[in-house]
Amino acid sequence: MTTIEPGAVDPLAAERAARMTWARLVEPREDKGRPLIAEHGHLGALARVRHDPTLLGRAAVARLTAFDLSRELRAADLVEARVLIPGDPEWPLSLDDLALPPHCLWVRGPADLRAVTERSAAVVGARTASAYGRQLAAEISAGLAGRGFTIISGAAFGIDAAAHHGALAVDGLTVAALACGIDRAYPAAHTNLLKEILERGAVVTEMPPGSAPIRTRFLDRNRVIAALSLGTVVVEAGLRSGSLNTARHAAECGRYVGAVPGPVTSVTSAGTHELIRTREAELVTDAAEVAELLGVMGDDLAPARRGPDRPEDRLGRKERTLWEALPASRGAPLSRLVEATGMSASDVLQALGSLNLIGMAVRDRGGWRKPPEPKLEDTSP
Amino acid sequence: MTTIEPGAVDPLAAERAARMTWARLVEPREDKGRPLIAEHGHLGALARVRHDPTLLGRAAVARLTAFDLSRELRAADLVEARVLIPGDPEWPLSLDDLALPPHCLWVRGPADLRAVTERSAAVVGARTASAYGRQLAAEISAGLAGRGFTIISGAAFGIDAAAHHGALAVDGLTVAALACGIDRAYPAAHTNLLKEILERGAVVTEMPPGSAPIRTRFLDRNRVIAALSLGTVVVEAGLRSGSLNTARHAAECGRYVGAVPGPVTSVTSAGTHELIRTREAELVTDAAEVAELLGVMGDDLAPARRGPDRPEDRLGRKERTLWEALPASRGAPLSRLVEATGMSASDVLQALGSLNLIGMAVRDRGGWRKPPEPKLEDTSP
Repeated sequence: MTTIEPGAVDPLAAERAARMTWARLVEPREDKGRPLIAEHGHLGALARVRHDPTLLGRAAVARLTAFDLSRELRAADLVEARVLIPGDPEWPLSLDDLALPPHCLWVRGPADLRAVTERSAAVVGARTASAYGRQLAAEISAGLAGRGFTIISGAAFGIDAAAHHGALAVDGLTVAALACGIDRAYPAAHTNLLKEILERGAVVTEMPPGSAPIRTRFLDRNRVIAALSLGTVVVEAGLRSGSLNTARHAAECGRYVGAVPGPVTSVTSAGTHELIRTREAELVTDAAEVAELLGVMGDDLAPARRGPDRPEDRLGRKERTLWEALPASRGAPLSRLVEATGMSASDVLQALGSLNLIGMAVRDRGGWRKPPEPKLEDTSP
Repeated sequence: MTTIEPGAVDPLAAERAARMTWARLVEPREDKGRPLIAEHGHLGALARVRHDPTLLGRAAVARLTAFDLSRELRAADLVEARVLIPGDPEWPLSLDDLALPPHCLWVRGPADLRAVTERSAAVVGARTASAYGRQLAAEISAGLAGRGFTIISGAAFGIDAAAHHGALAVDGLTVAALACGIDRAYPAAHTNLLKEILERGAVVTEMPPGSAPIRTRFLDRNRVIAALSLGTVVVEAGLRSGSLNTARHAAECGRYVGAVPGPVTSVTSAGTHELIRTREAELVTDAAEVAELLGVMGDDLAPARRGPDRPEDRLGRKERTLWEALPASRGAPLSRLVEATGMSASDVLQALGSLNLIGMAVRDRGGWRKPPEPKLEDTSP
């Protein structure tokens, strides 16, 4: 494991400590420090900041001075979290697709994060989800988990929770990415859900222990969800839902984005409709379609959609034409059927005979009609 | 008017008679005769068929022999229908975009067909529509009619009827295109609807009087609906609904196609979802979006969608960060807020002062928290 255990030799110890320091010094997508890091690496950049405190500003320097590696390690140990950095076998290479990848990741749970995210889908959406949205999130997640996809989401109320539960319901793997420290259960009402996820899956965050889930960190977290998975499905989203932000991050790092439509009268579908309208997302309606979107070519093709078969589909061309011209009430005489169909009288008679044999034409008041059949069905061609 | 009235001189009389004959000889999209017509025109092609009866086959020749112009004119007169052909001022030029345009059109109603279809939308869909679909069809049609669009549909049960009714409800113009002869009211249950449409609008068909609405003629009719309008909106459609066929015809003659999504659990939305999925249609959710799709550039732009404003949107960056880190229950001490936000103690204190002033932070048990506010809202960023 990549946990830094007391006594174990960590070949990346210095780099790991430097990255953990950076996670304390700056917010994940803060510009400050990034040019330094890009030029000198995390360790080198840190040395430069120590040398010239003006580089990052007063507050960051105060945090740099206060940084205490052993305290950090204890905080992670306390919740049995490991700290991953690039170079660790468990570091998900997918994160390198981000413009600003996490400095490091705190991870809990038995799953190997790189392995389980190799075939994974993010299922996200509104917190104020409707029953429709929660049902679909659970169904799509269960369907994907059943096809071997790990479900990644944000453990929030509504769609996120339904997505995790859907995967858990079929004993699938699921990963929760948090916007707060690994030592926090957020939202508190989902403490048990997070425990369930931890039984076989993983909980991850790039925020150091003790960090609160504030707005910008949700946006930071969303890019981690997007990058960790092969694609993101937005199930329900209002026009300001954070899941739209996740979808855009997914598109930015070249991942597939799907969105589930709903009634246009539902405000919680306005965001998914907008994603589809603007071509930022593909419209998806079930797990099979999502699997096709995400899966390996040819491996996960959704079955083609077709309507139900109807008796008249099996008729020959002339029989079909006549059958359609037959009135549903009051029999029509032969002359009327000839005019109505444009067929010759002998063709009409022949077709009437065939239809009569299979019970699809009956005599009525000296003419012919369809058999009575009290059903309502969309029979438009 | 282009009606052939007794005694009036019709400069296109011979061509009109020839085209009315062709409408009796062949079905609208039948290949037979089309090469002859393309080469020699309707009149010339007819002369050739008279000369060589083998060109069209036995049944067509029988119909040619039986053709009786004065009887045809009487049948049209009986229902006060006029017969339009290319060259008439009322002939809609849009029909010329069809690969196989109608030979002629029977038209009833006071509207000038060319004029009223110049700014028009087809609103079509499933016969077995849901209440959701019918409501949307009526709303979208009313909204478009209110923006000066003529609503074109097929007078069928379900979406078609709701579309016509929506236009009528706002005193808008609407046109019904039939799959049967102009002397027939199909479906019979819509006799009154057709009468209402006829009061200000028009009813049209390319099928000669007496023709029954058989399957292939619905498909013929669908291409007329598609070509007559600037674009087609499919409101609800099963996977085999004829409205999908209308949508495809619309795309073929370069018209815009929109489709309204619905719950993925509804079979009557499976067809519209498929149209959107396959990029055959744009997703549309209301009349404004359809108007934008169909309207003149810049003239009919739909308002941009945005979510509601929230109090925290108006906060400064530090106040916002702190506000988000404030617990919703139990006050948190200063040290906790410093850790949670990554802000300096003095910044936290200053932001607390500002939030407290506007009632967005309150003291609680020696710490600070958000004011109690029992509401459920999607506040994810």
